Amino acid sequence: MHYSDALQARVQKTSPICVGLDPNLFLLPEGIARNSAGVRDFCFGIVDAVADVAACIKPQMAFFEVLGWEGMKVFWEVCAYAKEKGMIVIADGKRGDIGSTCEAYADAYLGEESPIDALTVNPFFGSDGILPFLARCSKNGKGIYIMVKNSNPSSGEIQDLPVGDHVVHEHLATLVQGWGESCVGEVSRMSCLGAVVGATYPEELTYLRTLMPFTPLLIPGYGAQGGKAEDVKRGFYEGGLGAIVNSSRAIIFASKGANWQTAARAEAEKMAAELRAVLSTGMA
Amino acid sequence: MHYSDALQARVQKTSPICVGLDPNLFLLPEGIARNSAGVRDFCFGIVDAVADVAACIKPQMAFFEVLGWEGMKVFWEVCAYAKEKGMIVIADGKRGDIGSTCEAYADAYLGEESPIDALTVNPFFGSDGILPFLARCSKNGKGIYIMVKNSNPSSGEIQDLPVGDHVVHEHLATLVQGWGESCVGEVSRMSCLGAVVGATYPEELTYLRTLMPFTPLLIPGYGAQGGKAEDVKRGFYEGGLGAIVNSSRAIIFASKGANWQTAARAEAEKMAAELRAVLSTGMA
Repeated sequence: MHYSDALQARVQKTSPICVGLDPNLFLLPEGIARNSAGVRDFCFGIVDAVADVAACIKPQMAFFEVLGWEGMKVFWEVCAYAKEKGMIVIADGKRGDIGSTCEAYADAYLGEESPIDALTVNPFFGSDGILPFLARCSKNGKGIYIMVKNSNPSSGEIQDLPVGDHVVHEHLATLVQGWGESCVGEVSRMSCLGAVVGATYPEELTYLRTLMPFTPLLIPGYGAQGGKAEDVKRGFYEGGLGAIVNSSRAIIFASKGANWQTAARAEAEKMAAELRAVLSTGMA
Repeated sequence: MHYSDALQARVQKTSPICVGLDPNLFLLPEGIARNSAGVRDFCFGIVDAVADVAACIKPQMAFFEVLGWEGMKVFWEVCAYAKEKGMIVIADGKRGDIGSTCEAYADAYLGEESPIDALTVNPFFGSDGILPFLARCSKNGKGIYIMVKNSNPSSGEIQDLPVGDHVVHEHLATLVQGWGESCVGEVSRMSCLGAVVGATYPEELTYLRTLMPFTPLLIPGYGAQGGKAEDVKRGFYEGGLGAIVNSSRAIIFASKGANWQTAARAEAEKMAAELRAVLSTGMA
């Protein structure tokens, strides 16, 4: 199935929430081992807690890579488990390279048998670094989210540089929309090529939505980074569609105590309610 | 020891060559298994073949990641083996993310006990995404190479955008030089923060060298991608210092036959001779 069509069906059954899985060893709840076995237990537990509330889970690869190959083994197990539970799995690796290397990254994460549905991608190499991913997306029903305007404080140092009448991230948005035009889903009318636009830059989000009408958005920066429901609303279409909103730490580390699973679930439900309150109806 | 000081000593003993280790399964010599065990054999064999000719080895992470966690296990084994053989090990992962995530990437690859000496880094997030790496470099004697102007044909779509009187990659070069000023080696007088500038853009290389006087350069694109010795010369200082030149496919896939190791070594020696011919003396 086309990525955006599958995502839309899933959002309609749950919510446009993406839970960011950043299993930072130093922040794990008490009683969880500070090693790859502990990270596995924690991630499985978070999936169990949020699988029927959130549409997507987004494992942040850095926190698995820091545990060496054992961490990568856990990463793949977590992706497979979340997929089994019906979640849309977004690998947050922000990969990007020259064309021949992107072929390998695309095969690594977006192969036909991969439990991963989408990968975050860095656009710094231009189209050579995007088209290999696009080919796998079209063939295998996968998606990518290309970074356009990141949520961090210094993203503007590169992404807001003025280019003629525009800025770099607006130029990028035009490229992303163009790259993705060939891969629009029949039901969702959205492309398999998405964009990352931070909740922490609401003005930019409003304008970027107009520059990329068929591009599904992944909006990070909700919660711990400061983004609010009123901010992220600007990325959505009617019915709570066209975007997903990521929250990581505020959900997964909602409690350090024994109630960490129920606390994470409660936080996800609270976020779903906040989004429902600002988005038009049509959500579960 | 400071990264650039260690690199300089190694270059003086060998050559400013970096061998790119891109173990693409489809290109492995005959007789090598098309799986992670085969990739391990191949990579160890290449290290054996070039360890006393080339200063550095640069495993491209995508080609290990495509083999799943087993591939990552091999990646770490290859890094450790090359380190043991005295090579400078550059992990080509082009990682980049928001600050809190870069802390994890920096710990993953540039920890005190890591066999990796340097990591390639994507600057798209601005300083938040660089400073966590810089902290590990200073503390642990490691380095990073920040992409400034990549060797691929479409890199200009983002990196050459005009920004006032300059272009994006020139602006970036100024940032890189500034970030690295605090971490200059006593012997080499070069920073632990390096830059990637493609051999395929010689005019840009000339100017970028002047914008980043204390920045060690990693120059990819030699050989299979078209860069020549006369082109890369522009990145060097006297004595063949200040830069390393990467060649991947032309060396590691020099032969598909049983002589793949001797062919790889011969190709590395040929490249070293080509570089010697254009660079001033002082090289081994």
